[in-house]
Amino acid sequence: MKKLPRDPQNDYSVESATARQHTILEETGVSLSHVSQYSFDPQTLPGNIEAFTGVAQIPIGFAGPLLVNGEHAQGEFYVPMATTEGTLVASYSRGMRLTREAGGITTTVIDDSMQRAPIFVFENARYARDFGLWVTEHFAQIKAIAEETTRAGQLSHIEQYALGKMRWLRFCFTTGDAAGQNMVSKATRHACLWILDQQPTGLEHFSLAANFDTDKKHSQVNALHTRGKRVVAEITLPAALIESVMHTTGAALFKQRQLSNMGAMLAGSVNNGAHFANGITAMFIACGQDVANVAESSAGYVHGELKENGDYYFSVTIPALIVATYGGGTALATQRECLEVLGCYGTGKVHKLAEIVAATVLCGELSLASAIVSDQWVSSHDRLGRNRK
Amino acid sequence: MKKLPRDPQNDYSVESATARQHTILEETGVSLSHVSQYSFDPQTLPGNIEAFTGVAQIPIGFAGPLLVNGEHAQGEFYVPMATTEGTLVASYSRGMRLTREAGGITTTVIDDSMQRAPIFVFENARYARDFGLWVTEHFAQIKAIAEETTRAGQLSHIEQYALGKMRWLRFCFTTGDAAGQNMVSKATRHACLWILDQQPTGLEHFSLAANFDTDKKHSQVNALHTRGKRVVAEITLPAALIESVMHTTGAALFKQRQLSNMGAMLAGSVNNGAHFANGITAMFIACGQDVANVAESSAGYVHGELKENGDYYFSVTIPALIVATYGGGTALATQRECLEVLGCYGTGKVHKLAEIVAATVLCGELSLASAIVSDQWVSSHDRLGRNRK
Amino acid sequence: MKKLPRDPQNDYSVESATARQHTILEETGVSLSHVSQYSFDPQTLPGNIEAFTGVAQIPIGFAGPLLVNGEHAQGEFYVPMATTEGTLVASYSRGMRLTREAGGITTTVIDDSMQRAPIFVFENARYARDFGLWVTEHFAQIKAIAEETTRAGQLSHIEQYALGKMRWLRFCFTTGDAAGQNMVSKATRHACLWILDQQPTGLEHFSLAANFDTDKKHSQVNALHTRGKRVVAEITLPAALIESVMHTTGAALFKQRQLSNMGAMLAGSVNNGAHFANGITAMFIACGQDVANVAESSAGYVHGELKENGDYYFSVTIPALIVATYGGGTALATQRECLEVLGCYGTGKVHKLAEIVAATVLCGELSLASAIVSDQWVSSHDRLGRNRK
Amino acid sequence: MKKLPRDPQNDYSVESATARQHTILEETGVSLSHVSQYSFDPQTLPGNIEAFTGVAQIPIGFAGPLLVNGEHAQGEFYVPMATTEGTLVASYSRGMRLTREAGGITTTVIDDSMQRAPIFVFENARYARDFGLWVTEHFAQIKAIAEETTRAGQLSHIEQYALGKMRWLRFCFTTGDAAGQNMVSKATRHACLWILDQQPTGLEHFSLAANFDTDKKHSQVNALHTRGKRVVAEITLPAALIESVMHTTGAALFKQRQLSNMGAMLAGSVNNGAHFANGITAMFIACGQDVANVAESSAGYVHGELKENGDYYFSVTIPALIVATYGGGTALATQRECLEVLGCYGTGKVHKLAEIVAATVLCGELSLASAIVSDQWVSSHDRLGRNRK
Repeated sequence: MKKLPRDPQNDYSVESATARQHTILEETGVSLSHVSQYSFDPQTLPGNIEAFTGVAQIPIGFAGPLLVNGEHAQGEFYVPMATTEGTLVASYSRGMRLTREAGGITTTVIDDSMQRAPIFVFENARYARDFGLWVTEHFAQIKAIAEETTRAGQLSHIEQYALGKMRWLRFCFTTGDAAGQNMVSKATRHACLWILDQQPTGLEHFSLAANFDTDKKHSQVNALHTRGKRVVAEITLPAALIESVMHTTGAALFKQRQLSNMGAMLAGSVNNGAHFANGITAMFIACGQDVANVAESSAGYVHGELKENGDYYFSVTIPALIVATYGGGTALATQRECLEVLGCYGTGKVHKLAEIVAATVLCGELSLASAIVSDQWVSSHDRLGRNRK
Repeated sequence: MKKLPRDPQNDYSVESATARQHTILEETGVSLSHVSQYSFDPQTLPGNIEAFTGVAQIPIGFAGPLLVNGEHAQGEFYVPMATTEGTLVASYSRGMRLTREAGGITTTVIDDSMQRAPIFVFENARYARDFGLWVTEHFAQIKAIAEETTRAGQLSHIEQYALGKMRWLRFCFTTGDAAGQNMVSKATRHACLWILDQQPTGLEHFSLAANFDTDKKHSQVNALHTRGKRVVAEITLPAALIESVMHTTGAALFKQRQLSNMGAMLAGSVNNGAHFANGITAMFIACGQDVANVAESSAGYVHGELKENGDYYFSVTIPALIVATYGGGTALATQRECLEVLGCYGTGKVHKLAEIVAATVLCGELSLASAIVSDQWVSSHDRLGRNRK
Repeated sequence: MKKLPRDPQNDYSVESATARQHTILEETGVSLSHVSQYSFDPQTLPGNIEAFTGVAQIPIGFAGPLLVNGEHAQGEFYVPMATTEGTLVASYSRGMRLTREAGGITTTVIDDSMQRAPIFVFENARYARDFGLWVTEHFAQIKAIAEETTRAGQLSHIEQYALGKMRWLRFCFTTGDAAGQNMVSKATRHACLWILDQQPTGLEHFSLAANFDTDKKHSQVNALHTRGKRVVAEITLPAALIESVMHTTGAALFKQRQLSNMGAMLAGSVNNGAHFANGITAMFIACGQDVANVAESSAGYVHGELKENGDYYFSVTIPALIVATYGGGTALATQRECLEVLGCYGTGKVHKLAEIVAATVLCGELSLASAIVSDQWVSSHDRLGRNRK
Repeated sequence: MKKLPRDPQNDYSVESATARQHTILEETGVSLSHVSQYSFDPQTLPGNIEAFTGVAQIPIGFAGPLLVNGEHAQGEFYVPMATTEGTLVASYSRGMRLTREAGGITTTVIDDSMQRAPIFVFENARYARDFGLWVTEHFAQIKAIAEETTRAGQLSHIEQYALGKMRWLRFCFTTGDAAGQNMVSKATRHACLWILDQQPTGLEHFSLAANFDTDKKHSQVNALHTRGKRVVAEITLPAALIESVMHTTGAALFKQRQLSNMGAMLAGSVNNGAHFANGITAMFIACGQDVANVAESSAGYVHGELKENGDYYFSVTIPALIVATYGGGTALATQRECLEVLGCYGTGKVHKLAEIVAATVLCGELSLASAIVSDQWVSSHDRLGRNRK
């Protein structure tokens, strides 16, 4: 096969895209008649894609309105969900109806941190330990140097993890409204170059990354210590409402929760809830987030309490929700529109977006759990997803 | 806020979508001028979305050509990647060049299984244990009944997991070219209704799901016992090629691998590689896969061996790759085109797709690892992702 | 320092032990005046220790009586606990009083399996996969060969785990009344030598062990698939009894259970209970078990249910309880006496011992949980453990 | 069965013990003729056992000499190992010979911390978050109050973990030469009572423990953040020595390490080494440690590096080694003698003991790995453990 054509003069011109479409047609016989139909100017794309050829068109449905009582998100929202999975939008909407009628969802961002975790390997563990003490003592300097490379990023602290003669420094930053992975990589690298210049005693090896961040994959460290936003959504559902809207009871939901907790524990699952990933992914695709972060952001915890009067308290915690309202794909054409529908485009909005995502996730958890409990689950797939195998 | 309009007569008409766009404009002031520009007939959408309002346009770049020596995928492929993350397509392409020049990637699907795992709760553990024996004895009947609901699905075996008086039956199916979550839910539910009809002694409670599948979330069970396809991609890279293409050495990659293994272990990561999620997500969006499955499919394992002559053997294993070439979003407009470019649309293609995904993931691992080792990493983000914060 | 003396003629004579005591006195100045006081004939020791010099004297208290309604253990038992931790025996005894007054503990061995997991490494994943199929086809032969080396051991099945070009075969045996680690190592090795003789296509490397058993360490595989005995102990406690004996309520215990479940999940703990290890270790030391197996046997699960009338159902599951009533240290002097007190010495007794251990663990869980809930916990340590800092 | 007799006047008299022996004889027919033979005065036992009836006599063999180049342990040591598992002492001794001839083992205590982790539950996550900030601000006061209850304990810091409306405070203390679990429970409880007196806004519930410590069980938190001592032992073995003593090569050991790493990862093991638990348990029993802590202390990490000249660097890291040279069972008769043989009895010795344990563990790892690699493993069990099934 030919290599796809590149145009060093303007690789983001419509012509470049068209040339690639032609090559694909010639080489594979497939006409990209839909992929080629995009509504924006490809000159907006540098920094977001290479070898641009067209677009995936992912259907968007809006769920809601979702009623949020957050610190940053307040009021009702139409939630854009880009998905090809039938019942998903309907299911989340049902949860949004329930929680809206219950007075809305309380949301709280309880932590905010983005990391890069370089490794320093020493001749032996003693040098590594002493280096750790040195880092603690020189935190102010390291912070000042790291922050030279960024306006938005601030180094809040450095966690240290030790094994043998290795020491990982987990640099923890706040990153404003950007997700910040690149920002913190750059800042951490800059700080590390300075550290290396100080010639740490006994240093044998250095690498900017060695699987302790852990970018694009779930880890217990991230669940414990946050990556991106750690956000909680909570609600207490009146007993009567659970019955009228969900056709089940708080007691039944609570019983199911007990079994699901044990299942998650025994299975070694990274989430004791039902399907955080569905809502998060659909919002991430619609809103220009880095969708690969679903690997990290889909982990989490739910907690239920049955009140004596039959009311049901329920919460979701997302420990590693990586979101942005600035940078990345947020400024692209459809993505920006979806963020604007949420009032979440641009600076000063990222905690608002985090709260809306968490509230949405909570709605999906309640909806699916209710469906399982009331056994509407398989049959609702039948009805709405009827033309699928 | 108003509820979004529904049209019981034809909710998938252009008019219905337009009506929703108008409501959103009225209520939020945001004009969905790009979201509203889709190139397909919304009548194709039932079963894929509800409250359809428009589309997310996700830029697609093609990486490659990728050279695969699989059992199902053989030859060169242009790999469609839908993403908004700069450097991603370029990075994967670099890995594809390396592996192409090395003679291509060997791929093997080593397992294939989709699950639903109902829970049966008994009065005590003794009843639960005895039920387990009964299930084993009646497997043939259970299988026959489960398969009544599906043409493509076959119940290969039932795993049993026990805790206290609970017993989870993990029904394992092959599902043809569909991902099959709905298919196996339906079949499992059907079989369970029959089991319930047999009135198992001491049965106290039943639920079709209680977090043992574990759908849309990573679990150790899935890593051990496969969910979707378990697929391996492997290659041995000549020493000279590593240096000429990647500007590093096998020894350096192997050393980095050692550190990354220890990092992943200590961090409690579900993947000892670098960024499986990036390639998988970009392909999933482009190819009409259920992108939320990135939660499960992004886990995995890499393994490297340094040969005495400096060559480097490297493999990736994806234990829970959930892919489909039939059903779900595969028949939608742009999605189908991308599958066709890979020669992976329709029946009899799902193992081919699995192999191509695994080969792509391998390329991304080699490319990022090389970049880290040769410290091109942050700076390559600078160059290609230059207009981002 | 000198090497400790060995006597090739009779290394287990009293004289050999005394000679070592003298060397230690000469070299360190420490007189082993208590270590040297053992009451048995050291000629009973070959197979249990090398360089025998004396004994550790670990205080034994008997807890109980413990009332068990098992399939193998029925009636009341004095439970020997060897420990140096104050409050431990008293705490377990309190739980035994509670459960005795509640009518006793139901116990069930729900699985029984001991493993050795050799690794076969192939040139690539395809050979490894095909080898897996071959193993499944030749199970009957492999079983026959494995069992040539043992009277008590039977190969029940072989689980297969795959990563890259590696394949672990987890040979699962029943081992009669022995713990069986050595038995299954020998049998597995014998079977593997036969497998190697068949010259598996593409085989590159073999090792009898590569961390998949996982002997002497906890793993998720063992929690899922049993190592040793998988045993459950259960009870329903009347509300009135919880109050009169434990000075708390079922509701309070259940509430604490909810929080402890979330704590265990977030902390990444291998046990959501309180302190399985305490009871297991004390019994293991007293009863001649391989105490290092506490690493595996201390993992587990507890589950509670609050009944509408305030009664509290509670269970413990030990998924990897490694016990023996034959072989190992079971025939040594004090160890045998303790087993005899339980009616658990010799053949045909191992499930009985497993049930008693599980029932004991349950008592300790209820006792400590009650103490935490009623805040007697720290103060009870004060009272009984008063001369410790 | 009768309850075992208690003597409120002097429950630790020889007469009390004898009375219990008689009751056991009467009720079970078993004469505790060996259990009853202890060499110490039972009046030394209060705080270590209740219902004292006799002793378990566990055979002790001394391994070594072990050559340690620690910061606290320097020189050669006879290592007391109490076990009933044949080959164990011989195997560790072989590793000690190897490392002694290689110049000894470098050991380093890299962290020291003991915890109690109370939970505070609030009306919602916002109160919980704000409480967390309050705790950080009031650390100095909390520290002062916690330390009122102890001379040896110092509160070094408080880690915070958050899920929903729950917040665990992980109080981290140094505890001098005691293991310190009771000390830190008391101090943490004292501090929490003060915190509760400040009436935290929105507080709904408090418990001194909810599975975040995690006492007597392994958790990822402890592996990441240390419980007890975090200690490393390291050595570089000359190629010639590996061959002459272990009959294998560094390359073979390193290859086996690669496979074992992958096995541990896939199996979800808490230790990528071979059998830390064996050495730790045997030393714990001999030296009056709380043996139940094997549950935590047996987790760990090994790391190997093959040098170009065939030398082999190897390290073990024990992240949660809970040891004491003061308090607990350390002052009992045989236990004290064993600690004295190591020069580790009393104050100022606990880091020395930690180093010796780690060095011993390293020897056992090298010995077993070599045996596996050179296939002496099963056959060495045959020879030494010949009278066992």
